[in-house]
Amino acid sequence: MARNKPRSGGEQVSDLTAGRLSVYLRCLTALDAAGVKTTSSKSLAAQFHLNAAQIRKDLAYFGEFGVRGVGYYVSELKTHLRVILGLDRSVRVGILGAGNLGLALADYQGFKQEGFAIIGLFDVAPEKIGSQSRNGVRIHDLQEFERLARAGEIDIAAVAVPGSAARSAIGLAVGCGIRAILNFSPGTVKVPPDVKLKNVDLTVSLESLSFFLARGEASVPTP
Amino acid sequence: MARNKPRSGGEQVSDLTAGRLSVYLRCLTALDAAGVKTTSSKSLAAQFHLNAAQIRKDLAYFGEFGVRGVGYYVSELKTHLRVILGLDRSVRVGILGAGNLGLALADYQGFKQEGFAIIGLFDVAPEKIGSQSRNGVRIHDLQEFERLARAGEIDIAAVAVPGSAARSAIGLAVGCGIRAILNFSPGTVKVPPDVKLKNVDLTVSLESLSFFLARGEASVPTP
Repeated sequence: MARNKPRSGGEQVSDLTAGRLSVYLRCLTALDAAGVKTTSSKSLAAQFHLNAAQIRKDLAYFGEFGVRGVGYYVSELKTHLRVILGLDRSVRVGILGAGNLGLALADYQGFKQEGFAIIGLFDVAPEKIGSQSRNGVRIHDLQEFERLARAGEIDIAAVAVPGSAARSAIGLAVGCGIRAILNFSPGTVKVPPDVKLKNVDLTVSLESLSFFLARGEASVPTP
Repeated sequence: MARNKPRSGGEQVSDLTAGRLSVYLRCLTALDAAGVKTTSSKSLAAQFHLNAAQIRKDLAYFGEFGVRGVGYYVSELKTHLRVILGLDRSVRVGILGAGNLGLALADYQGFKQEGFAIIGLFDVAPEKIGSQSRNGVRIHDLQEFERLARAGEIDIAAVAVPGSAARSAIGLAVGCGIRAILNFSPGTVKVPPDVKLKNVDLTVSLESLSFFLARGEASVPTP
């Protein structure tokens, strides 16, 4: 079912697809919570400002989920999307850096809701080690990260260290066998081809707002 | 020069374009810092894992920047991109919520580098008001945000409040005349059509990594 569809041109098409599947999952979760049993690409598109044709195309790529005359069963499609996104198993996240950003990530409500397990915060500052975030995520020594990662007990490393330390933090994670990294530090860091590095550049988001202000333009929000 | 190109289907094409322009600007800044004088779409694409045809298309949309036989002058193209992105004037950002995330945003190095001015943090907790972030961004009473926003002294509101307070914080900003909002809280909030709301959902990034781990696949990182 999970075919891989490579695309030429260097664009991370799969990344965009994964992003859209996440958004669909978020929408279905909202519908499920509201007691809605069935939906359609058209109805999803209208309610959440999405593109109906794109929804059909994205879903069709992973299998045949629609039912003629009914559309999609909300709960069933939600389960399918969770499997496609790898959320049917517990995904364990270790956070490198226990500064403000690391602490904010540790307590971010959305992660727990979607089934991510925050294993811990990891830092080198002796005064931080042993304490915990507001919601009780403990701060460990960086060596503990290495031990857990080598033991295969961390799936994703979130890097929230100062910019100057990002390269070495990412290098450390890769060296311990981590294959998926979410990096919040600015700048470009290279990783081996079998490692997936996702950079979250907060400046890009602010610049897109600046772009709209400069052009005196606004548009419909997406969920 | 700044034409608007509407696209049917509800997709925020302009948002994607703005995001790519930001990435190009980041790449040009890196080249400029390294003393590189000229570049080309092909060279940019190769160095930063981008798509050359896409670069040409994106840039051509805003004017004629390339020089036959030379390519692009790095410094000149950087200046053009800064104008297109509205970064040639100071863009003033007010941060709602002085928790870990708000404090992390206030001190985020990338913002200052790109010319964003963090006006202040704004909160309702009396014990926080009057103190400041590690880098010296002061925490004010929320009423001060209202005063500044109504006086036209804040361009962008960054919303970093707990999920339960997001709707009212966004409502407050809109009510004070703010037209661009960067929201870090989960959930969907509707804003008037003349307001641009950009949601940063950190769960989507984590899910895209989970997606890759589940499929046993990795790909080339983008800057």
